[in-house]
Amino acid sequence: MEFISGVKQKEDISISQLLTGNYIGQTVRMRGAVHNVRDMGEMVFVILRKSEGLVQCVYEDHPDRAADRGADTAAGAARSDGKDNEAGAPAAPADSMPVPLQLSNLKNLKEESAVEVTGRVAAEARAPYGYELRLCGIEVLSEPDEILPLAINKFKMHTSLEAKLAMRPISLRNVRERAKFKIQEGIVRGFRDFLMSQGFTEVHTPKIVSRGAEGGSNVFKLDYFNKKAEMGQSPQFYKQTMVGVYDRVFEVAPVFRAEKHNTTRHLNEYVSLDFEMGYIDSFEEIMAMETGFLQYTMELLAKDYQKELEMLDVKLPDVSRIPAVRFDKAKELVAEKYNRKIRNPFDLEPEEELLIGRYFEEEYGSDFVFVTHYPSKKRPFYAMDDPEDARFTLSFDLLFRGLEVTTGGQRIHDYKEILKKMEKRGMDPADIESYLMIFKYGMPPHGGLGIGLERLTMRLLSEQNVREASLFPRDVTRLEP
Amino acid sequence: MEFISGVKQKEDISISQLLTGNYIGQTVRMRGAVHNVRDMGEMVFVILRKSEGLVQCVYEDHPDRAADRGADTAAGAARSDGKDNEAGAPAAPADSMPVPLQLSNLKNLKEESAVEVTGRVAAEARAPYGYELRLCGIEVLSEPDEILPLAINKFKMHTSLEAKLAMRPISLRNVRERAKFKIQEGIVRGFRDFLMSQGFTEVHTPKIVSRGAEGGSNVFKLDYFNKKAEMGQSPQFYKQTMVGVYDRVFEVAPVFRAEKHNTTRHLNEYVSLDFEMGYIDSFEEIMAMETGFLQYTMELLAKDYQKELEMLDVKLPDVSRIPAVRFDKAKELVAEKYNRKIRNPFDLEPEEELLIGRYFEEEYGSDFVFVTHYPSKKRPFYAMDDPEDARFTLSFDLLFRGLEVTTGGQRIHDYKEILKKMEKRGMDPADIESYLMIFKYGMPPHGGLGIGLERLTMRLLSEQNVREASLFPRDVTRLEP
Repeated sequence: MEFISGVKQKEDISISQLLTGNYIGQTVRMRGAVHNVRDMGEMVFVILRKSEGLVQCVYEDHPDRAADRGADTAAGAARSDGKDNEAGAPAAPADSMPVPLQLSNLKNLKEESAVEVTGRVAAEARAPYGYELRLCGIEVLSEPDEILPLAINKFKMHTSLEAKLAMRPISLRNVRERAKFKIQEGIVRGFRDFLMSQGFTEVHTPKIVSRGAEGGSNVFKLDYFNKKAEMGQSPQFYKQTMVGVYDRVFEVAPVFRAEKHNTTRHLNEYVSLDFEMGYIDSFEEIMAMETGFLQYTMELLAKDYQKELEMLDVKLPDVSRIPAVRFDKAKELVAEKYNRKIRNPFDLEPEEELLIGRYFEEEYGSDFVFVTHYPSKKRPFYAMDDPEDARFTLSFDLLFRGLEVTTGGQRIHDYKEILKKMEKRGMDPADIESYLMIFKYGMPPHGGLGIGLERLTMRLLSEQNVREASLFPRDVTRLEP
Repeated sequence: MEFISGVKQKEDISISQLLTGNYIGQTVRMRGAVHNVRDMGEMVFVILRKSEGLVQCVYEDHPDRAADRGADTAAGAARSDGKDNEAGAPAAPADSMPVPLQLSNLKNLKEESAVEVTGRVAAEARAPYGYELRLCGIEVLSEPDEILPLAINKFKMHTSLEAKLAMRPISLRNVRERAKFKIQEGIVRGFRDFLMSQGFTEVHTPKIVSRGAEGGSNVFKLDYFNKKAEMGQSPQFYKQTMVGVYDRVFEVAPVFRAEKHNTTRHLNEYVSLDFEMGYIDSFEEIMAMETGFLQYTMELLAKDYQKELEMLDVKLPDVSRIPAVRFDKAKELVAEKYNRKIRNPFDLEPEEELLIGRYFEEEYGSDFVFVTHYPSKKRPFYAMDDPEDARFTLSFDLLFRGLEVTTGGQRIHDYKEILKKMEKRGMDPADIESYLMIFKYGMPPHGGLGIGLERLTMRLLSEQNVREASLFPRDVTRLEP
């Protein structure tokens, strides 16, 4: 009987291993995609693309290199002389066996081939990371069928967003494109790790629902075994429900909005970072928790994603303190400073959001600002009204460089109060009975928020279009790739 | 201007703080739900439910306790004498101000109220964790409107699955019910943390797609701005695509299957733990990676989820080595040992899976078994056929106590080869052009797997129905809660 007993070390090395400096002078193997081949006549540079970065490999057909090449051949031979393949892999097919390296092998190498190179590690100041591989062998693991239609191996692609998105599966291979989503990974890690440290429990709630949390017409409808169903606009009802179970919960999951806007800020499917916390004394605690998340995450990015931040020229914002301003006050400040008339006292126009962002940047040097006490009529029924003035709610948005990236607030926890608010809005409690159940049988004071991951990423990267921050964006016209 | 500068320590303490033992003899505050009130005449026990567990609080109306009560009142007074509320919360409304504690306050306490208790910490061997709070004050933060219709405060609920699911928002408050999903959290943490340590990148791919990866009729269809769309059955195409970008990727996200089966093993929406890895030498590497994940996760559960494992009587399986057997061989072994006729050589019936599980338990003491080399006709077009016998594929399922919890394998990476296989199956390449693009322009040898989170949880917990392992299950008849 064969047994599988866990991960075995592979024979090829990673970039982190290379960077230890322990391999200088040694012959190693590395695997990756052929990012670029530069033919310099007697010399060929092959740039290998790995997940962690690029590796410069060089081969020189020159008498001075004969000694090296002798060594290389020896190393190449050692390779096939039977060192156990620990993963129990079958032998490589005969047609891909390593052949003695010649310049012509490299000159004919197709970009985007998957290869394993063998080479001696040398310090080389002009190479990425300060190391290069002096090649002595190359094995082609797989080859493309066609030549790339766009220059993903340029540092900047200089291609329109439309063209990039049409070829997304390939354009993401560009090192700057993929760096964006590495940073996005860091944001999600920061969210989870920070909330775990604060006693939150991660939950997974259904995305096919009988009724959306926000209501309205911007829902995708589907037929669920002859019943009407919708794609969840938000995990709102479920995360509140789970506060009754775990006190503090979070979820990272897709949400779906059938909004017909085709703007630079909207996606029809996006990743929502949601949390909800019980036993709060005030809605300020929710803003404090979000500030804590941002502080933790900026530190994490600075620590683990420095390479990507540098590549994209990202300057991390200062989040040591974030100003908070009332909705009505924010409108006044902006109207006054920028000579703007307040047209609608109950709503913020995108332009007004931009000006509020600008105001707090200019006056307080802050990229972020909490706008609090949104008008009740602009918030969903479950939002808690301000006991001091019921026209406003104990809620907030977080603006990041003038763009709303978060909506949050305290929720009603009292059964009679939520029924009253629903009645006032002409809603039928029977429609959401299983949600109202949590209030009927008791809920602590609580609140929470939802953060749009792509918007947060977009602003952090100073991108102008939210599609730049989504691997495979969904918008009114885009359902593929 | 008000500024928010991050999370402030709250004045109430957590169970972990209580367990430090540093609070013995001190008067502390704790917040939680009233899980149970036991009226013993002169004495009342209040069991507080917090996310981390239960806390026993006791109040005795007895002359011997007069001293304590005096101290309590002092502490209660100290509370309102103006210690700064660090979170900047507004003062509590007058109707919930703490009142001098009397037996009658506690006797009238409604279960599922949210409260803050004040009490002196005492060692008490009979209490959970060995500590109790001698109450001196209680503040009701919120009250339920109605009395619970089911006894969630019993250790075991003795309620039918149907009844539990109908009242899911409430029944999850039972400590054993919620412990299941705490363990589920641990599985997901294990998956992510382990894969991160192995150089994987986390990705988020769209769930609204133009065409499902698995094909067939079991897809939920929706109207996407007058275009036909589907809910993703699997992130298959996208995770393969991302191997071209990051070499190794994973995703934890919902998948949707419109299967009409109403069995104990099927859900119509579930959480899929997916990974995909490039530059593999063989499909055994994928099984090795999964084994590594299981090893890491069992250790994590033993370390951080001991309380929940004990509560649910879970014995963690031995995953130091997992047997791997060929599909055809497994059928033979089972037919021979259990006197069973092989009816269909190309498929495994659920009963056969159970027997294979039993066989490897009996013969090798293993709860897990990899079944490899599934017949090609039973696998999707992108599966790589075995070069030694094209009737079979380089693929596997992982069975856990006789239930399939994972499907994985090596994928075709060559453009011409995948076109050939599609042609043989009568598929039109134009339908999935943006997926096929990755092969046309070059992909490394790669493979991966998808794990059904709820099935893995169900088997680990020895539950008989997969619905027990889903917070809010979706099945043919269930769209709520």
